Amino acid sequence: MSHPYTPRDLNLEDYVPNFLSQSTILAVYGIASLLVVFLIWVLSGRSSKISKIDRWLMCWWAFTGLTHLILEGYFAFSPEFYKDKSGCYLAELAGKEYSKGDSRYAARDAGVVAVEGLTAVLEGPASLLAVIAIAKGKSYSYILQLAISLGQLYGTAVYFITSYLEGDKFAASPYYYYAYYVAANASWVVIPSLICIRCWKKICSAVQLQGQKKTKVR
Amino acid sequence: MSHPYTPRDLNLEDYVPNFLSQSTILAVYGIASLLVVFLIWVLSGRSSKISKIDRWLMCWWAFTGLTHLILEGYFAFSPEFYKDKSGCYLAELAGKEYSKGDSRYAARDAGVVAVEGLTAVLEGPASLLAVIAIAKGKSYSYILQLAISLGQLYGTAVYFITSYLEGDKFAASPYYYYAYYVAANASWVVIPSLICIRCWKKICSAVQLQGQKKTKVR
Repeated sequence: MSHPYTPRDLNLEDYVPNFLSQSTILAVYGIASLLVVFLIWVLSGRSSKISKIDRWLMCWWAFTGLTHLILEGYFAFSPEFYKDKSGCYLAELAGKEYSKGDSRYAARDAGVVAVEGLTAVLEGPASLLAVIAIAKGKSYSYILQLAISLGQLYGTAVYFITSYLEGDKFAASPYYYYAYYVAANASWVVIPSLICIRCWKKICSAVQLQGQKKTKVR
Repeated sequence: MSHPYTPRDLNLEDYVPNFLSQSTILAVYGIASLLVVFLIWVLSGRSSKISKIDRWLMCWWAFTGLTHLILEGYFAFSPEFYKDKSGCYLAELAGKEYSKGDSRYAARDAGVVAVEGLTAVLEGPASLLAVIAIAKGKSYSYILQLAISLGQLYGTAVYFITSYLEGDKFAASPYYYYAYYVAANASWVVIPSLICIRCWKKICSAVQLQGQKKTKVR
């Protein structure tokens, strides 16, 4: 069975095409994500102590944490997803479908597997911890959010730079290039950048205040 | 001219061997690094406000920043260092000599070039800024040090994981494997980890204090 990926000479023996249609695969991911966001928004609204921006952040961390853990975790530890005959949803979305935007996924490119593995194992659980940290107003909340966001930005940078260095030739068509490779990854550039700026400012003002207090005590 | 790297079938046309001996190359790097540390230690000692641990950290940031900028910067932007006939010291150290521990440097592996490029361009200047931030007691000092250290840890993780995924077969001999690939990189695992723990604690205590102050005001 010939695969739909680029470059065409990529060797994927025993490739099995998707059972589900593209719209079904994407709709399930979209609806599941919206459900997660809705659930966290409603639950966090029960506490009057949590600000609106913190509630939005809790939604983001739950969504990104589950994406890291489930989708990227599945990909990182399933080297033969493209042979899947069972119609497993994760093999279809995180593997076969996304590889149309970047065939390095199907080809098990070491850089992509390393970044996805780190993201799944470290940033996945840490993102879910961030949901709890914000809800409970923990003192490590800002620094944790900044650390995960920096990891996401670093991972995305390595992801894009390695593709550029290898000729940026891994999308099956311009549609998949822009829809999957560019647009789907853009959230993990924009949102972590905004969170970094916010946390950086919050932390600086707290450290400054501590410094002023120490000077007063002297 | 046959190259000294592993795997032996790596194709490096027009390879030119080192002019300097291994001991000369390493001694120059060692002495230059010690000079930097000595200079920063002496200069920072002129201010009674800077604690001993902060003076050591300034030495580390100056050393690591110059290593990132000069060595890793040279490597990232010199794809043909292995053809160098001029006896350029940086080509000999950052390129030809280190490739004995990891031939992916000579082979321009995309993962290695991406990590080294990010390290040189972002973490190099940021490390030098950290020297100034500590000296001037800036409120962003801890968060900057934590951000760079996380970047160093992430980069080192990608560096080791990609090598592992590709079979860990890039050292010319067990000697170069342990001396260059393992030992030379170990500092960038141990020291950033310690700095992360320290900065994390400092930031948490500052945020906690700010929280207590806000509660009092209420």
